[in-house]
Amino acid sequence: MSPERLARINAMLDNRQSDLTICLEHIHKPHNLSAVIRTADAVGVPEVHAIWLAESTRVSNHKASGSGQWVDVRSHDSTADAINHFRGQGMQVLVTNLSDTAVDYREIDYTRPTALMMGNEKDGISDQALALADQDIIVPMVGMVQSLNVSVAAALILYEAQRQRQAAGLYGVRTLDEAICQRHLFEGGHP
Amino acid sequence: MSPERLARINAMLDNRQSDLTICLEHIHKPHNLSAVIRTADAVGVPEVHAIWLAESTRVSNHKASGSGQWVDVRSHDSTADAINHFRGQGMQVLVTNLSDTAVDYREIDYTRPTALMMGNEKDGISDQALALADQDIIVPMVGMVQSLNVSVAAALILYEAQRQRQAAGLYGVRTLDEAICQRHLFEGGHP
Ligand SMILES: C[S@@+](CC[C@H](N)C(=O)[O-])C[C@H]1O[C@@H](n2cnc3c(N)ncnc32)[C@H](O)[C@@H]1O
Ligand SMILES: C[S@@+](CC[C@H](N)C(=O)[O-])C[C@H]1O[C@@H](n2cnc3c(N)ncnc32)[C@H](O)[C@@H]1O
Repeated sequence: MSPERLARINAMLDNRQSDLTICLEHIHKPHNLSAVIRTADAVGVPEVHAIWLAESTRVSNHKASGSGQWVDVRSHDSTADAINHFRGQGMQVLVTNLSDTAVDYREIDYTRPTALMMGNEKDGISDQALALADQDIIVPMVGMVQSLNVSVAAALILYEAQRQRQAAGLYGVRTLDEAICQRHLFEGGHP
Repeated sequence: MSPERLARINAMLDNRQSDLTICLEHIHKPHNLSAVIRTADAVGVPEVHAIWLAESTRVSNHKASGSGQWVDVRSHDSTADAINHFRGQGMQVLVTNLSDTAVDYREIDYTRPTALMMGNEKDGISDQALALADQDIIVPMVGMVQSLNVSVAAALILYEAQRQRQAAGLYGVRTLDEAICQRHLFEGGHP
């Protein structure tokens, strides 16, 4: 591995936010999954979690992800399982929800350990996710369409998290598990 | 038309930013065009401009747009034509460019009349657009992927513009041409 590439991977690892993650509930369009994974990488989210609609989607989505080498995609069997996992990590669980009572996404404190849940392209977030989450949030819209594309909404919220965490000095400080870092350094050197 | 719907359309028209627009250079994936149009509507951008790669893309893209009723898609024959059009409206022209010298998108003043140009999925922005623009801008990334999805990058910049313009009191004040407003009120009442 060239010294430049080693430095690049190490810089990436220093910017990974081990306590910030995103979870996709029943997303079925591969291009949306792929766009979310690229954004996750770009803001330093090390893992993308997913609850698949069907086994078939799981496989095709996984293959379609492309940039998946640097972001781990972890599957859960149910919404409750995923949320339990996040709680076990001490994370606040935020769900995106197109409701009048949801809070503006810019009012949330993302410097706390945070899991962000995005809903299905057609039906949105499940009632179960809404019931189990700490808070529902929305990206305000002033037009006529009902919703944004799911990967667009995810990116707006993750970049707001990035902005807050940057201001709080949470980038450039390695927090990622050493075993994960070693795996990336090894695989990145032998692509 | 119900009073509620009339009020909704009027509120939308009051939030339209007649001096903020976006231009897509040679975008060819319909789902990206569609996502950009939804975001444009959501932040109050009344028109999306496009320079098509080929006549065939133009037609299929246009049909795929869906939410197009509330956002006008205007075509230009060339990048130079499009930029001339924006200059004629007194707009600063910003191009997105994945370069070390591009300015962080959060440092730009979007309360000025602004046209934002996005590049092709594969090749990015053209050299011509870069040469003719006032400024190139970038959404910073701290991971390993080379770029964000184009509709994701567009949304991050447009929502930063929305944030600045909201703070400057530019929403809720009708600036859109009266003829355009009348057309939307008419068509929206007879969908
Ligand atoms: C196309 S939307 C789902 C629309 C669905 N009809 C509904 O009512 O929820 C798919 C997902 O994108 C996200 N999303 C879209 N627009 C959003 C917004 N303005 N604020 C927050 N999340 C949004 C949410 O995660 C949503 O579940
Ligand atoms: C997939 S990218 C093009 C990648 C191309 N290989 C290049 O070097 O430009 C498609 C478009 O998305 C936008 N884009 C993607 N990532 C961006 C970023 N980080 N900052 C600004 N614009 C971005 C730009 O408009 C770009 O032309």
